Amino acid sequence: MKNHLRQAVSKIGQPPGTVAVTTTVAEPPGISLLTYTATSLEERYEQPLAACLEAIDPAAVNWLHVAGLPDSGILEEIGKHFGIHALVLEDLGSTHQRPKIENFANHTFMVIKVIQLDEHSKRLTIGQFGLILGSHFLVTISNQKMTSFDLLLERIRKKRGWIRELGTDYLAYAIIDLIVDHYFLSLTHLDTALENLQIQAVADPQPEMVPIIHGLKQDIMLARKAVWPLKEIVIEIQRGDVPWFSKAVLPFFRDLSDNLNMLIDLMEMYREMATGIMEIYLSSLSNRMNTIMQVLTIIATIFIPVTFVAGIYGMNFKHMPELEWSYGYPLILLLMALAMGLMVYFFYRKKWL
Amino acid sequence: MKNHLRQAVSKIGQPPGTVAVTTTVAEPPGISLLTYTATSLEERYEQPLAACLEAIDPAAVNWLHVAGLPDSGILEEIGKHFGIHALVLEDLGSTHQRPKIENFANHTFMVIKVIQLDEHSKRLTIGQFGLILGSHFLVTISNQKMTSFDLLLERIRKKRGWIRELGTDYLAYAIIDLIVDHYFLSLTHLDTALENLQIQAVADPQPEMVPIIHGLKQDIMLARKAVWPLKEIVIEIQRGDVPWFSKAVLPFFRDLSDNLNMLIDLMEMYREMATGIMEIYLSSLSNRMNTIMQVLTIIATIFIPVTFVAGIYGMNFKHMPELEWSYGYPLILLLMALAMGLMVYFFYRKKWL
Amino acid sequence: MKNHLRQAVSKIGQPPGTVAVTTTVAEPPGISLLTYTATSLEERYEQPLAACLEAIDPAAVNWLHVAGLPDSGILEEIGKHFGIHALVLEDLGSTHQRPKIENFANHTFMVIKVIQLDEHSKRLTIGQFGLILGSHFLVTISNQKMTSFDLLLERIRKKRGWIRELGTDYLAYAIIDLIVDHYFLSLTHLDTALENLQIQAVADPQPEMVPIIHGLKQDIMLARKAVWPLKEIVIEIQRGDVPWFSKAVLPFFRDLSDNLNMLIDLMEMYREMATGIMEIYLSSLSNRMNTIMQVLTIIATIFIPVTFVAGIYGMNFKHMPELEWSYGYPLILLLMALAMGLMVYFFYRKKWL
Amino acid sequence: MKNHLRQAVSKIGQPPGTVAVTTTVAEPPGISLLTYTATSLEERYEQPLAACLEAIDPAAVNWLHVAGLPDSGILEEIGKHFGIHALVLEDLGSTHQRPKIENFANHTFMVIKVIQLDEHSKRLTIGQFGLILGSHFLVTISNQKMTSFDLLLERIRKKRGWIRELGTDYLAYAIIDLIVDHYFLSLTHLDTALENLQIQAVADPQPEMVPIIHGLKQDIMLARKAVWPLKEIVIEIQRGDVPWFSKAVLPFFRDLSDNLNMLIDLMEMYREMATGIMEIYLSSLSNRMNTIMQVLTIIATIFIPVTFVAGIYGMNFKHMPELEWSYGYPLILLLMALAMGLMVYFFYRKKWL
Amino acid sequence: MKNHLRQAVSKIGQPPGTVAVTTTVAEPPGISLLTYTATSLEERYEQPLAACLEAIDPAAVNWLHVAGLPDSGILEEIGKHFGIHALVLEDLGSTHQRPKIENFANHTFMVIKVIQLDEHSKRLTIGQFGLILGSHFLVTISNQKMTSFDLLLERIRKKRGWIRELGTDYLAYAIIDLIVDHYFLSLTHLDTALENLQIQAVADPQPEMVPIIHGLKQDIMLARKAVWPLKEIVIEIQRGDVPWFSKAVLPFFRDLSDNLNMLIDLMEMYREMATGIMEIYLSSLSNRMNTIMQVLTIIATIFIPVTFVAGIYGMNFKHMPELEWSYGYPLILLLMALAMGLMVYFFYRKKWL
Repeated sequence: MKNHLRQAVSKIGQPPGTVAVTTTVAEPPGISLLTYTATSLEERYEQPLAACLEAIDPAAVNWLHVAGLPDSGILEEIGKHFGIHALVLEDLGSTHQRPKIENFANHTFMVIKVIQLDEHSKRLTIGQFGLILGSHFLVTISNQKMTSFDLLLERIRKKRGWIRELGTDYLAYAIIDLIVDHYFLSLTHLDTALENLQIQAVADPQPEMVPIIHGLKQDIMLARKAVWPLKEIVIEIQRGDVPWFSKAVLPFFRDLSDNLNMLIDLMEMYREMATGIMEIYLSSLSNRMNTIMQVLTIIATIFIPVTFVAGIYGMNFKHMPELEWSYGYPLILLLMALAMGLMVYFFYRKKWL
Repeated sequence: MKNHLRQAVSKIGQPPGTVAVTTTVAEPPGISLLTYTATSLEERYEQPLAACLEAIDPAAVNWLHVAGLPDSGILEEIGKHFGIHALVLEDLGSTHQRPKIENFANHTFMVIKVIQLDEHSKRLTIGQFGLILGSHFLVTISNQKMTSFDLLLERIRKKRGWIRELGTDYLAYAIIDLIVDHYFLSLTHLDTALENLQIQAVADPQPEMVPIIHGLKQDIMLARKAVWPLKEIVIEIQRGDVPWFSKAVLPFFRDLSDNLNMLIDLMEMYREMATGIMEIYLSSLSNRMNTIMQVLTIIATIFIPVTFVAGIYGMNFKHMPELEWSYGYPLILLLMALAMGLMVYFFYRKKWL
Repeated sequence: MKNHLRQAVSKIGQPPGTVAVTTTVAEPPGISLLTYTATSLEERYEQPLAACLEAIDPAAVNWLHVAGLPDSGILEEIGKHFGIHALVLEDLGSTHQRPKIENFANHTFMVIKVIQLDEHSKRLTIGQFGLILGSHFLVTISNQKMTSFDLLLERIRKKRGWIRELGTDYLAYAIIDLIVDHYFLSLTHLDTALENLQIQAVADPQPEMVPIIHGLKQDIMLARKAVWPLKEIVIEIQRGDVPWFSKAVLPFFRDLSDNLNMLIDLMEMYREMATGIMEIYLSSLSNRMNTIMQVLTIIATIFIPVTFVAGIYGMNFKHMPELEWSYGYPLILLLMALAMGLMVYFFYRKKWL
Repeated sequence: MKNHLRQAVSKIGQPPGTVAVTTTVAEPPGISLLTYTATSLEERYEQPLAACLEAIDPAAVNWLHVAGLPDSGILEEIGKHFGIHALVLEDLGSTHQRPKIENFANHTFMVIKVIQLDEHSKRLTIGQFGLILGSHFLVTISNQKMTSFDLLLERIRKKRGWIRELGTDYLAYAIIDLIVDHYFLSLTHLDTALENLQIQAVADPQPEMVPIIHGLKQDIMLARKAVWPLKEIVIEIQRGDVPWFSKAVLPFFRDLSDNLNMLIDLMEMYREMATGIMEIYLSSLSNRMNTIMQVLTIIATIFIPVTFVAGIYGMNFKHMPELEWSYGYPLILLLMALAMGLMVYFFYRKKWL
Repeated sequence: MKNHLRQAVSKIGQPPGTVAVTTTVAEPPGISLLTYTATSLEERYEQPLAACLEAIDPAAVNWLHVAGLPDSGILEEIGKHFGIHALVLEDLGSTHQRPKIENFANHTFMVIKVIQLDEHSKRLTIGQFGLILGSHFLVTISNQKMTSFDLLLERIRKKRGWIRELGTDYLAYAIIDLIVDHYFLSLTHLDTALENLQIQAVADPQPEMVPIIHGLKQDIMLARKAVWPLKEIVIEIQRGDVPWFSKAVLPFFRDLSDNLNMLIDLMEMYREMATGIMEIYLSSLSNRMNTIMQVLTIIATIFIPVTFVAGIYGMNFKHMPELEWSYGYPLILLLMALAMGLMVYFFYRKKWL
């Protein structure tokens, strides 16, 4: 969230609608174009923008994908070619928009969050994915690499499912569906992490667990902020409020809606689990303390009184009759053994042993 | 919930509407058909699907029950015979749908959860139950064995109640009612478990209790997720929004609605009880700690000062006049007894003894 | 709540609408009939049902009261005489209905909860009270003895207030009002119990308090489940949605509504108090622990160092010059006193003494 | 709240609408009348009711104020003179009404709570204030002394503000405004008390603080129950739903509404503060425990090992070569000093010193 | 909040609508006027009010800014010149209004909160900012210095963005946007503070952290109270309900709304973080306690039994055969070493070492 703060702060006093690109990805963005109809398919990868824009065929489905964060020049060129609103271009330049949908005269604009697992820190990272859907084009801008696009390409190439028969709106649906499937993939990590933590909290409570649990809780919260607004977007599409989605595509969003509901259920459950693990951890700690104190108390209680008795007969008084007795020493040893046995019995009855 | 994750993840990049069956039950599904009117009754158990479909009588109530998870071939055959929507078949193939109702042109489709108690782990298991209700047929697909169907069969055979007079919609109601009755049965376990835990939390708090309490809390949460959406389904039916339920059957759902409300009340109460037991456990732990420390403190406080006195007279100084006194030893013993008595009195007044 | 579970479980597989009476009261129900107009009054107690039904006068107010749980024969006879719906009779047979109101063609049916204090266990018990209100009759079925009916009888006999001038609807109001007054009576117990617990939690925290506090919390929760739905019933009546209550009677329900609001406020306050007492208890426990540890620490810290010094001069080395000194012994005593004084001063400055 | 319970309980079985006065103020109520127009002003204090009622001038603003709880005779006389509804009189007789507004044919009736600080117990007390507003009269009944009325009298006498130009409705507004100003005054106490408690919770956590904090929380809750319903009343007046308030007066209620919103914000903040102080207190307690245990551990750990060494050389074995050495004693002293130094270094590195 | 209480209390008994200025800023307010059109720009700083009012040009955008709290004379003069409602002037005189918008016949009035970080106490301070927007004028009154106005002036002077083309409404938007940007700036502090506290809570839990965490929580709460009502104001403007904002300006508020939503998300996250840090702190404390007790227990348990053995052989009994043995001393040393080794092994197996 700090990036977002920095971006907001850096724009203080700037007039709105300025295309100010906050570059977090160093490498230049890769531009690809996919043009297909039910019968034909053309693929262009890593080509200059101008060449792509020229190749756009108004009679086909045109998917222009920009990987990485484009500079403002590219954004403005795309904007000019497709007649995209200036405020949309501004939003695309920033990487910290909330998921939203906005309808314009000749296109609809969506921002969706991409959730991915950072393998190193085991924390979730939230990326931004922008979609601009028009009658014959779909422009997507992703500031994170998404490997699973290959599966979608396979479906387009091999004509699997409805993808080659339906238009840009189905393509948009297929991409959103893919992103939501990614959400589940990211949550698998949470699932495993939480189960391991629960086991550890019982068996071996360590102070290092606490910040990890809180980190997971924050991750769940971040994921919630990605999923909830997307659900609202999907509901709006399902209601038929977004003209760029045809009636033929709407039923597919029913499935998406079900998946998002399940995600929300899952996250709620994970949240509860995290809270529960924290409780288990704290009670394990309390329990361990009890065990420690029990050991100390048993040892101290058994030995302190007899040590006192030994101390008495270590005194150097001239007149201590017991010291002269022949059986004084064995008698006192017996007495001590008795006292210790009594203590042991007391602890046994208290179930401390 | 992990199964669900695995299923969602395995479908990444797949086109929607593909009948992908996630088999968790190894044995082949058993197919049964019950055909009855007010006067006649035919029962067919464990027969091939084709034979069952052929025997369907449009003038009677036809209940086709598939126990276990059918493979996609069976699902498609049933779908073709009754004209069931492709997306419904897809949902039936998956075992992790949320409870829902969907109305189609010639049938209505419901998913309901079956809650059963796993005798071994003492945890609740959530199964899925699909109903497809048409004018003259009811197809049910259950991925769990349900023994209580026998009671329903008895009612059909012996013409008890309205079941032979009313149509497929009443049969659907009777099955849902049976499933809800099962919910209560499963909750009996929670009831007993919670009461035992509460008693144990007071008498003998053990660290093993904490994960059990959290397990029960998660079970209650799972059960809630089965009951809440079902309540919404029942309300929708009661409002008359589902055309396949006739007016004659609607009043029966009033009772079902009352039962679901009571279930929700019960689960809320169980949840509060679980939270309360956790609190009792923690305060029992604190209390036990207090007792342990009290014992240590009493013993240490009584013996440490007198041990010090004994230490003094154990010193080897040449000139220690007390050591020479005839009554030195008994005097010092008296002094020690006095000091110990004082301590005991102090603890007695503090109510620690 | 367990009774309710048992009842629901015992009905698995039963057709709905069967009058299955769950008898928790052993003795046979007592049937009484009160028939009055503005001028006349006839009272019949503990008479057979048939005699009562015969004596009903359509021109007067007829109050048929069944104390205890009637068997299904009685219920069916009453149902036939007054034309009461079969589902109402079924509800009357069960003792664990939620408070509700249901309007039928020739009567309205209400279920209300009676809250009473079990003198032995000091826990609240929730009973059920059924009212069937028609144009000239009021049938009430109570599965608990209610002593305060005598006060109502007095008002009827002595024509106090409006009761003899208004019809069956006012009688129904008067009875509900009496039951709500009983709620307050039951809550007096909670009030006293909570105040005593609060005082004890500060002065003398005992582990036995924790289950008592949780028991009170559960009682408050049970009472809430009785009061909230009743409030909704009263609001429905006030709105004029129940045809059997005439306009003349509606203003009286305003008062009832105020009382129920106050009850809800009270219960919320009791709930907060119970939570607060738990917090006070736990902090008292923590505090006591602090005191215990402080005593141990003070005693140990004062005596351990000086005991060590005594130990040094108890060693048997041949060459220990101090032992030969004439003033060795008094010097070492002084040193010890000094060390102990220093410790005492340290604790005094730390405010531990 | 107990008074309220007692009152409710004492009315069990009573017909509604009976003017049953619950007297908590012993002294007879004082009756005053203020009659004023833009030009004239007549003041009558502590006069008999009959004289006051006679002096009422239908062409002027008549403010009849009853201080203390009137007996039912006075209430009935007032009721008869102004045509006040019987149920209003009943409500005025009780002192535990919730704030509410009720419109009648020739007057509107309001109950408002007066919050005052009991100087002795430092707890808030909640009084009741009744207003009956008609076209030319305003009857107010207060069961608590309110000193700040003098300021209002000054404004009437000196014609400050709009009070002499506008009618009875503005007078009613001015009185409510005064009462709300009193709420702020009472909250000043909470403000100071909470800040002092916060400082004490950090510096010197005492068990006596816990019930005080919970007392403040209950006071805040009581105040909330006074303020929230009043806000609803003011909103109803602002909407113009109360015919007895003219359009000229409505804008003034905007200010009142703002003040009530601020009060609600303040109380929410106080509530959070109280919860925070409790948390600070508990963590201070934990911290103190840590300090205590640290002292004990340091002392014990430094002296226990060396005491053991001294014990060894205090043994009386015949053959202990070390005892014969010339430098045995200084060597062993050095060894002990070393061991103690090591322990001190260990604690220093653990930052316990 | 105390200031607010003091102000409310000081006004008890005052007639409403009196311009009572609560001066918290000692220095006289500075009055500035900016008059600009698309082509011309006139700036007047720190001039007398009369001169400014005279210079107002109805054909241009006139921004009259009053820095610091004006006295009632200035407020009344401004009020008379622009025809501002008396109640608005009263609100401007007070410094503790809640954010709100009020529409009048010839102007709209807004109160917005300014959040700034007090560099000394590291706490947020909330200031008030009043805007009165008419057709050709914008009056702003700020009781805090705002340095970032310079950036806005630059935009006006250099004609950057739309500011010189659009009217007073756009100027009002630009100012609100600037204030919201300030909110983000203030929150950067919270962000850093919370992260540092989290690290410290794990590494080095100190009791001083608790009041700091609670201070941050209260700051977040204060900020929430500034942001939430502002969001409602912006929504009202966006809906087109405020006539003084033209259609050309409305789209800009979309951005503002997005920013406010992000602020709310951020604050929610900070709140959760603060709660989490408190939890981490408490569990760190518990953990430290465990470590302390472990050290004590290990040391005590290893040395207490062997000290007892040494005590036995320090007794002065005449007949103690062991003392005479040639190898008594080394044997007993071995025994002690063995006992200590056993204890160490026990702790090693319990993983306490």
